[in-house]
Amino acid sequence: MSIVLGPNQYGKAEVRLVHVERSTPRHVITDLNVTTQLRGDFSAAHLVGDNALVVPTDTQKNTVYAFARDGVGDQEDFALRLGRHFLSEFDWVAGARIAIDSVTWDRIPVDGVEHDHAFVRAGTERHTTVVNLAGDEAWVVSGISDLVVLKSTGSEFTGFPVDTYTTLQETTDRILATAVTTRWRYTGTDLPFGDLFTRIRTIMLETFASLHSLALQQTLYAMGRNVIEAVPEVAEVRFSMPNKHHFLVDLQPFGLDNPNTVFYAADRPYGLIEATVVDDEAPPAGDAWAGIPGFA
Amino acid sequence: MSIVLGPNQYGKAEVRLVHVERSTPRHVITDLNVTTQLRGDFSAAHLVGDNALVVPTDTQKNTVYAFARDGVGDQEDFALRLGRHFLSEFDWVAGARIAIDSVTWDRIPVDGVEHDHAFVRAGTERHTTVVNLAGDEAWVVSGISDLVVLKSTGSEFTGFPVDTYTTLQETTDRILATAVTTRWRYTGTDLPFGDLFTRIRTIMLETFASLHSLALQQTLYAMGRNVIEAVPEVAEVRFSMPNKHHFLVDLQPFGLDNPNTVFYAADRPYGLIEATVVDDEAPPAGDAWAGIPGFA
Amino acid sequence: MSIVLGPNQYGKAEVRLVHVERSTPRHVITDLNVTTQLRGDFSAAHLVGDNALVVPTDTQKNTVYAFARDGVGDQEDFALRLGRHFLSEFDWVAGARIAIDSVTWDRIPVDGVEHDHAFVRAGTERHTTVVNLAGDEAWVVSGISDLVVLKSTGSEFTGFPVDTYTTLQETTDRILATAVTTRWRYTGTDLPFGDLFTRIRTIMLETFASLHSLALQQTLYAMGRNVIEAVPEVAEVRFSMPNKHHFLVDLQPFGLDNPNTVFYAADRPYGLIEATVVDDEAPPAGDAWAGIPGFA
Amino acid sequence: MSIVLGPNQYGKAEVRLVHVERSTPRHVITDLNVTTQLRGDFSAAHLVGDNALVVPTDTQKNTVYAFARDGVGDQEDFALRLGRHFLSEFDWVAGARIAIDSVTWDRIPVDGVEHDHAFVRAGTERHTTVVNLAGDEAWVVSGISDLVVLKSTGSEFTGFPVDTYTTLQETTDRILATAVTTRWRYTGTDLPFGDLFTRIRTIMLETFASLHSLALQQTLYAMGRNVIEAVPEVAEVRFSMPNKHHFLVDLQPFGLDNPNTVFYAADRPYGLIEATVVDDEAPPAGDAWAGIPGFA
Repeated sequence: MSIVLGPNQYGKAEVRLVHVERSTPRHVITDLNVTTQLRGDFSAAHLVGDNALVVPTDTQKNTVYAFARDGVGDQEDFALRLGRHFLSEFDWVAGARIAIDSVTWDRIPVDGVEHDHAFVRAGTERHTTVVNLAGDEAWVVSGISDLVVLKSTGSEFTGFPVDTYTTLQETTDRILATAVTTRWRYTGTDLPFGDLFTRIRTIMLETFASLHSLALQQTLYAMGRNVIEAVPEVAEVRFSMPNKHHFLVDLQPFGLDNPNTVFYAADRPYGLIEATVVDDEAPPAGDAWAGIPGFA
Repeated sequence: MSIVLGPNQYGKAEVRLVHVERSTPRHVITDLNVTTQLRGDFSAAHLVGDNALVVPTDTQKNTVYAFARDGVGDQEDFALRLGRHFLSEFDWVAGARIAIDSVTWDRIPVDGVEHDHAFVRAGTERHTTVVNLAGDEAWVVSGISDLVVLKSTGSEFTGFPVDTYTTLQETTDRILATAVTTRWRYTGTDLPFGDLFTRIRTIMLETFASLHSLALQQTLYAMGRNVIEAVPEVAEVRFSMPNKHHFLVDLQPFGLDNPNTVFYAADRPYGLIEATVVDDEAPPAGDAWAGIPGFA
Repeated sequence: MSIVLGPNQYGKAEVRLVHVERSTPRHVITDLNVTTQLRGDFSAAHLVGDNALVVPTDTQKNTVYAFARDGVGDQEDFALRLGRHFLSEFDWVAGARIAIDSVTWDRIPVDGVEHDHAFVRAGTERHTTVVNLAGDEAWVVSGISDLVVLKSTGSEFTGFPVDTYTTLQETTDRILATAVTTRWRYTGTDLPFGDLFTRIRTIMLETFASLHSLALQQTLYAMGRNVIEAVPEVAEVRFSMPNKHHFLVDLQPFGLDNPNTVFYAADRPYGLIEATVVDDEAPPAGDAWAGIPGFA
Repeated sequence: MSIVLGPNQYGKAEVRLVHVERSTPRHVITDLNVTTQLRGDFSAAHLVGDNALVVPTDTQKNTVYAFARDGVGDQEDFALRLGRHFLSEFDWVAGARIAIDSVTWDRIPVDGVEHDHAFVRAGTERHTTVVNLAGDEAWVVSGISDLVVLKSTGSEFTGFPVDTYTTLQETTDRILATAVTTRWRYTGTDLPFGDLFTRIRTIMLETFASLHSLALQQTLYAMGRNVIEAVPEVAEVRFSMPNKHHFLVDLQPFGLDNPNTVFYAADRPYGLIEATVVDDEAPPAGDAWAGIPGFA
């Protein structure tokens, strides 16, 4: 037996930062949840409690707020700035993982005009970013979580194998609903991230809506393929999609038919479809996915 | 000592119903969470476990789904239909409380055109309804929960009393943020509830945005007053509003100023402002608020 | 139309206080979540944003922490101390609502001996208290929330009425599971609250376990009755109990029987049973339940 | 550009299974949350919506319930049984990931005697298991999540580096609190998993309690090292531990000292310490960690 310290990282999680850009009366707000984690040789802290190299997580939090003083910009760029600072400031920090989630605020319309400084939370979804850094290299993975979508028709599920434990019936018209969690790997670190995010989100939504679905797997794959085809800056897309079942309620005991109109929305269990769509000719992933839940 | 059964009610909670109106290719979906509770003389069940009068909660659930077969309509009307059914069907059911929450789905735009049958969840807010029934009477209370709003300026807090435990500084420019939970009592049961809801929501948002706020209490009151003034069908409005603190981060230790741009969004504790705005000349409340958390 | 301010209250919610009693090496920790709310004539703040009478919620928070310097004691007593302070310190504060929830920590056993200063969170339940004050009067309501219990037999449900919408079958042997939320009203304010809480909790658990249940209503009522009979300091007990359904899985399609051994634990919908058990000869409730969700 | 399907898996998530062992009057309940995911060549479903090889997730759910008919046993063994079934039943299923979480129920004591069939939920923690299978190989990773622990003294944090953004003060006496999430890799698949779990949990708690902590990193490492030293069946232990900050409240503005007795328990941000402790001479990990969030 030879017990050693394996991979490790530490930092400050969920630093809640709201930045108000107020250089003009039309304020812009950025609402972020920032997690910083450092990697390197922290064995002394683990083995004997020697903190000489342990940049306090409180210092990391302070750094997040101090850096926001100059503005935030695209969250991918803000994550890169933070990560590069930690690697350059502290010799012994060899790598970092900076994760940022953001929520969106819409302007409140007053008499049909969007207000300058009053906002309402839009949607349940979050825009996610994880930047991994190792030495001089950096990788950017962005994504969306909790994008809840539903089709009330245009979805089938037929032709599946049957065994002893199969009781499911085929259907050529069902509700298809999911809460999309997706992350995609960018090919570079110097990209117009904000614009790309908007385009990718649009492609995903339009694909979900337009494709007549024979399987949630097919919908998932098409969403990823369409993104990669249209956005060359994306090398790979990963999805985790629950199949949020909507079961047709049996109304026959009450003398009623149910022509695909009355459904029971179930909580658990749910189907779970996870897959990667990748451009085989794109640069390799390197450490892009380090510390990001995957399913390889 | 004389131990007796006091007020009681029972039923099925959180029946998840999704209805698809598909009489035309342009589907309309209604996504409800329905709770039914019956009141009456259920002492035998409590005292000796005699269920002769206990309409099973499973039956109540079935009734919800069966009634949806004919369409749902405004959720206030659906709640009234359900409640009246239980009172007429079972002699011993003297009253009921039917609560319905709903979430909103937007149509997914594809090439700028809203899709016929593909939807994306809109916002975090829910439209709430509680209908109380007692004999031939019925009261309708609707509301909104989790409507998250924020102003990045136009909010002050000054002139407050100071005692031994006061350390707070006055401010003439702060972020004001809250998650509005509100419920209002309608004057009748035969009203265009859907349209009224939309108007009330708009008035609340516009008031929040437009009022220069000297206190969250002032904003709350104005939101309620403006609703009652503009919508005579509303007799009373109640609010519960957390003051979601956004604290200006002190950047001075790092040699930086902070001109109201960098904020820490705190979770707990939070201020909590609760109040009622009421039209004193409206009909009395009766049992309208039975079983609804209040603060009288 | 005559719009006026109705009932209102405000304060600081969810002040997270951990107190360590360390006068001996055997530390005692108290882990509280405190909400303070003041009542009185706060119309100026609501109508015109005049804060001259608005004791800042930040001051209320500071007061909670400052008062803990002398020790906390039973949470009911701490709530009374806080409430009485606000009423005596500020003339215009006519009433208050102080709510405290607490969680329990067990000592970690090391080699069979309970540790002096290392603890592990025990259970999911919380001990709740709401103290209402009005002028010289005060009322104490304590309770338990999220006490999750289950019986694997000893529960029936038969003899219920049948109508068009009934499909449920009778059962003489089912799983009975619930998450108890209960609150009880004490007859006074100068009582050994900690000891009483322990006794009441024990009676409730023992009653749930021992009673052969013909209906969840019967179990609920017996739990309340047994508390009032054994603890004269309790005037009234309220319960809100979800019937957390465990459905027997139909294994017949797979050629298997299911002798009450394999169950599906459902999330939603669930039954919801709510009732009050009261000693009719106890003092009247007064404002004891103000601001506490009820179902009268 | 050459777009292809990358790693993927699918199945049924969160099948809620409660099993009652009732061969004697002293019932034993097992309360599981089971997720099954299959791997293999599912490209036809993704590319063209051909479901010929897609074992329905509904079938997977049915299988979980059917297999429970014969009893569950240790959850690690149940996961292995399920996984091996899917691989043997369907030629094209090349691998699987079976995840099971469980919660614990204590018997309710009645007059000091533990009840035969009445239970109360114990603690917030869950016992987790992930079994990965690939062809004839299988790996078992078990763990604990949400084990919330706290030390009221015996924890320091000093000697850390200081830079421009450091404001934290050193402390030789602080509260140390965390919610342990840990997973460990077993060296085999034919082990007394239930007993091992109990021993590992005890070692972790005793180490947390006993070690005078100079850093949370040191505590984490000691917990892992002590497990591997005492339990040769464990090859590797991973931890993710939030540092749940308890800040000493400054009572000086109120003329009070605070001798480490009054603390504010913060929600966010929090420190986050993640690391692996591994026996370098143990068998390699293989696919043991596939689909488990890590931080390599």
